[in-house]
Order: sequence, then C-alpha cells, then structure tokens
Amino acid sequence: MLKLYYVPHTCALASHIALEEAGAQYEAIRMSFQDEDQKKPGYLAINPKGRVPALVTDKGILTETPAILAYVAQCYPEARLALVHDPFLFARAQEFNSYLCSTVHVAHAHRMRGTRWVDDPGAIREMQRCAPLRVADAFALIESRMLEGPWVMGRDFTICDAYLFTLAQWLEADGVDLSKLPRVLEHRARVAKRPAVMRALAEELAPAA
Amino acid sequence: MLKLYYVPHTCALASHIALEEAGAQYEAIRMSFQDEDQKKPGYLAINPKGRVPALVTDKGILTETPAILAYVAQCYPEARLALVHDPFLFARAQEFNSYLCSTVHVAHAHRMRGTRWVDDPGAIREMQRCAPLRVADAFALIESRMLEGPWVMGRDFTICDAYLFTLAQWLEADGVDLSKLPRVLEHRARVAKRPAVMRALAEELAPAA
Repeated sequence: MLKLYYVPHTCALASHIALEEAGAQYEAIRMSFQDEDQKKPGYLAINPKGRVPALVTDKGILTETPAILAYVAQCYPEARLALVHDPFLFARAQEFNSYLCSTVHVAHAHRMRGTRWVDDPGAIREMQRCAPLRVADAFALIESRMLEGPWVMGRDFTICDAYLFTLAQWLEADGVDLSKLPRVLEHRARVAKRPAVMRALAEELAPAA
Repeated sequence: MLKLYYVPHTCALASHIALEEAGAQYEAIRMSFQDEDQKKPGYLAINPKGRVPALVTDKGILTETPAILAYVAQCYPEARLALVHDPFLFARAQEFNSYLCSTVHVAHAHRMRGTRWVDDPGAIREMQRCAPLRVADAFALIESRMLEGPWVMGRDFTICDAYLFTLAQWLEADGVDLSKLPRVLEHRARVAKRPAVMRALAEELAPAA
C-alpha cells in the first residue's frame, strides 16, 4: 500500500489531496518538524533531502510534489486529475506546478527558511521583510494569467488545483495583500468545499493520536 | 514549427538539447539579457514571466524547463527521452528535474539574481557569499545518491541528463569545489560528447548573425 509521509501545514497537503481525489488506498504518516522527525535516520533513509512529502510505493520512493502529483494522476486515470495522454495539456499542468514549486514556494520559503540560502541574521531579516511582496508578485501572475476558472486548467479539477490550494493556505501568514487576489481566494474557497479536500485536511489537522 | 526562445548560458540549453536529441523540427531564437529582450513587450506576450525558455507550439506556448522537457519526451517517444508510459519511472524523471529547478537552480540564482528575493545590497552580498556552499550541497546529493550512471536514470540517456548537464555548466562560475564531484564532472564530459549536444551548444555559442 502507498504510504505518504507528511507534516501538517506543508506542501505535502497537495499530494494528500491528490491521493484522496484519486480514491487511492494509502496510509498517511504524520511527522513533526518540532520533533525534527525529518532529520531522523529512519526518515532520511526514505528521503535523504530531509523534506516532505515522500510517497513510498511498491516500486520505490518518490519525492518532490510535482512528481508525486503527476504520478498519482497517471496511476489513477479514471479520476481525471490531469490529461496525461495529451502531451500539450499534461505539459501545461506540469508548467503550472513547476511555477508553484520553483517560484511561489521558493518566495514563501524566504520568510520561513532563510537559512537554506544565507547564514547572516541580517540577511535573513531582509528576506523576511521582502517575502510578502515577492509572494504577492508570484500570486499576481496566477491571479491575472494562470487561473482559467473555475479550476486552474479550466473546466475540470486537476492536480494543479490541489497544489495551488495548498500554497494559498499560506497567504495570510505571508502577509500578502489579499484584496488583490479575489480569483485566487475564490478558487481557494471552491477547493475547500470538495469532500476529498475536507477529508485530507481533517486527517492532517486532527489531534495527534 | 516549434520555436524555442533561449538566451545562451541559461537553463534553456536543456530544452535545446532535448529538441536536438528528439530530432525535432524547430527554430531556435536567440535573445539577449544585455539587450533586455526578455522584458520587451513582444516577448512578454509570449512569456509574461520574462524568463527563458519558452517553447511556441501549434497548440500554444509552454514555459518552465521541466514541463518543456516532459513535453518533448512525450511528443517524440521514438527518441526514448523518458519512459513516459511507466508512471513510476516517468515520475522519477520528474522528481529529478523538479529537484534541479526548485533546489539546484534556485541555489545558483542566489549568486546571480538576488534581487528576486531581497532589495538590500548587503543581503545580496550575503547570498553571493553563501551560494558556492549551497550549490555544492545541492550537487553533493546528486553526486552521492541521484546519479545512477552512466546516465542519471541508469542505462539510457533521458531529459534528466540534458538538464543536469545544463546546470553543471555553472559549477566553475558558482565557485563550487569540483574535487568533490567526480561523478558529476564525468557525467558532464560524457554528455558533452553527444552529437545532439554539440549541435545545440554550437548554435547557442556561435557569433550573433
């Protein structure tokens, strides 16, 4: 059975939602950054990057959100989470997800994880100071150009919606001016009503067993 | 016919190589950062992000290297640039490319493009100071865990090799200690000998017409 390693409030939520939307049989394994679970030898043997998510499959382990999302979409074609047999439309989904991972998530990470790139506390503070504007800039392009509506790719819910919803969870904490992003917020509210999304969130946010 | 917009010495080389390896019919259109071609209205209409690469197809425009690489692999299956019909192995390729775009390229960009994330000159200098170590860390994982050999995914050349070769062009300028990366360097030399790679490089590095 598939095993998804996740930490609540991280980008792993996108993979969690995709698995729920796909109707996959899987086990969700919650970890904690506070307990530094991601740096423990047992987890580093699964993902040497010390990051979440990681998806353990019977063929091997996958990391990196765009890869896991594409995998879920390909493995459960009946869920229609991406048009995997149309090279152009599949690439459009990958393009969107690639922008989220390399631009949007990275802009956000400069508020939370500045030590990934610098040591000096002053530089880290400058990253934190600038992050709201940079995250806002990254979302402005989604708002104006990349969100077709009602879903990211248009008529059908896809893996892109799960991923955008996940990163849009962080807008308030990132200090972004929400008044400039009405379509992103409307999209976020629309995704939040999906039963699969509610199930994934309920599991992630339930008190620890 | 496909049109690839590129700037020499950028990650667009990966897409250029993939198109050559695929035997695609395409036109390569060179742009210049010095002339700020990427910020001109004509190009912003193609790619509103003002970045390269962009691939114009008869179905629409694609940006983001991992998406373009996956598209080329899917459109030219006879070139076997990725095992697109095996969801797990295709996802492994995407995982590798996602790591390159969101971790390796981003670490490098902190030396060259600090203003993407901060304004303060001191913070930019700190990014530049730390970049050699961060890029080295990102490549260390490739060296030790992610490069199966002789090619990234093992026996066959794939889109991952084109992308790794491209980012490995920057190691010297990034100030990375090359003595720690013998397998990456050996891989780089192996890729450089491929006729398709030589053709792409020759075109990118030829004097402007």
